[in-house]
Amino acid sequence: MTKVSIIGSGNVARHLIHAFQSNSEIELVQVFARNKKSLTHLLDSNSVTSDYTQLQAADVYIIAVSDDAIAEVSSQLPFENQLVVHTSGTVPLTTLESKNRRGVFYPLQTFSKDKAVNFKTIPICLEAENEKDLQTLNQIASTISDAVYQINSEQRKALHVAAVFVNNFVNHLYQMGSEICDNNNVPFEILKPLIQETANKIVSLSPKEAQTGPAKRNDLTTIEAHQQFLTDENLSTIYTLLTQSIQNNGKKL
Amino acid sequence: MTKVSIIGSGNVARHLIHAFQSNSEIELVQVFARNKKSLTHLLDSNSVTSDYTQLQAADVYIIAVSDDAIAEVSSQLPFENQLVVHTSGTVPLTTLESKNRRGVFYPLQTFSKDKAVNFKTIPICLEAENEKDLQTLNQIASTISDAVYQINSEQRKALHVAAVFVNNFVNHLYQMGSEICDNNNVPFEILKPLIQETANKIVSLSPKEAQTGPAKRNDLTTIEAHQQFLTDENLSTIYTLLTQSIQNNGKKL
Repeated sequence: MTKVSIIGSGNVARHLIHAFQSNSEIELVQVFARNKKSLTHLLDSNSVTSDYTQLQAADVYIIAVSDDAIAEVSSQLPFENQLVVHTSGTVPLTTLESKNRRGVFYPLQTFSKDKAVNFKTIPICLEAENEKDLQTLNQIASTISDAVYQINSEQRKALHVAAVFVNNFVNHLYQMGSEICDNNNVPFEILKPLIQETANKIVSLSPKEAQTGPAKRNDLTTIEAHQQFLTDENLSTIYTLLTQSIQNNGKKL
Repeated sequence: MTKVSIIGSGNVARHLIHAFQSNSEIELVQVFARNKKSLTHLLDSNSVTSDYTQLQAADVYIIAVSDDAIAEVSSQLPFENQLVVHTSGTVPLTTLESKNRRGVFYPLQTFSKDKAVNFKTIPICLEAENEKDLQTLNQIASTISDAVYQINSEQRKALHVAAVFVNNFVNHLYQMGSEICDNNNVPFEILKPLIQETANKIVSLSPKEAQTGPAKRNDLTTIEAHQQFLTDENLSTIYTLLTQSIQNNGKKL
């Protein structure tokens, strides 16, 4: 069995703990948490430590902490030449202290504290400094996910920017839709099936093929009516910019 | 059985034909199509006409044509005081010729030609000039959908603008994410589970509660790194505007 230890007690750490606990191919050796009590509802307290010098031997140490803390945590580890990985979409591999063999184990998902996830469908993006460590990470990732990718730091950066567009910005557009509904006494519920269908459509169509609407049709009458309707300056600016971007789409590609 | 006739042969018309054909409570009397052949693969040719004077008696005539054609089509109808509705999200009820009793039967969904839809989950927004006609429309809509709403023309306008944000603009952001991936040799496939999860999240959380990411955290280091990464002017402008909008969110609400 491959021995894994996790350093951290936040959302990603907890979801990984859960995934490894119910895993016949992985031994979850230990979890490091500054505050031991934060994890005692998930783990036997003997498996949790808040003292780096108490960390036991493992094949991989997964640092699942906030981006800003990765460098500091990796420098605190009291051993050398072990496989140490972080779970961040934005931090380069080289941010990890070079006294250990470095890697990245990045699950590309939006983890909510209270929402269970099916890890099988979550892509895990791996990076390592040598082939053998990559294989170890691949073996571990494959026990929890059916979608494992090898992605270098430069690709991971692009992926994270793209994820901001399709996740953070998309959710913000949902919020704008919700505000327009609220301000006009329309239940936002009505839009939820459309939101689902919009996401489902691109499973089988490219986003470019799936594009519909007044901007795509260049329906200037509707666009003008919408612009007059939107008295909020922020909504109006975003409407205009995204409409123009869709209209220019054919020209650009 | 309530008798329904459909005028039109486009996507919405075809999906309605399909929904009414397999419906024990509705009799699909006739479909009007300028080109009869466009529908003969769906219907017995006796049920299709391209001559307005051949339209038979029905309880409701559903005009499912492009927005621009609704006024013209409704004025061509060779009868008076019948219930005539259109299916548009943007056109006011009053665009229909006033010689008939007017209404709206607006299925809020993005219909693709080749993609089957489950009508049961598609919200249908109804409007009518009197209570009895509204009841008739409600009875018909309820046979094909579990989500029937009464929405007046002003609310429908808001709903359509909101739908542009959560459907058209969201899909355009998917496309931007896809381009960023393509340009950096990353498979767009990796992002699809995140896209699904983003849409699924707001079934149980409000979009405001579901918001995550560097703009929400006000993580200026990551935001600056992303802005440097985005050399395309259009992507960069949209990134900056949506980031600012998320950052300002707390202040506004």
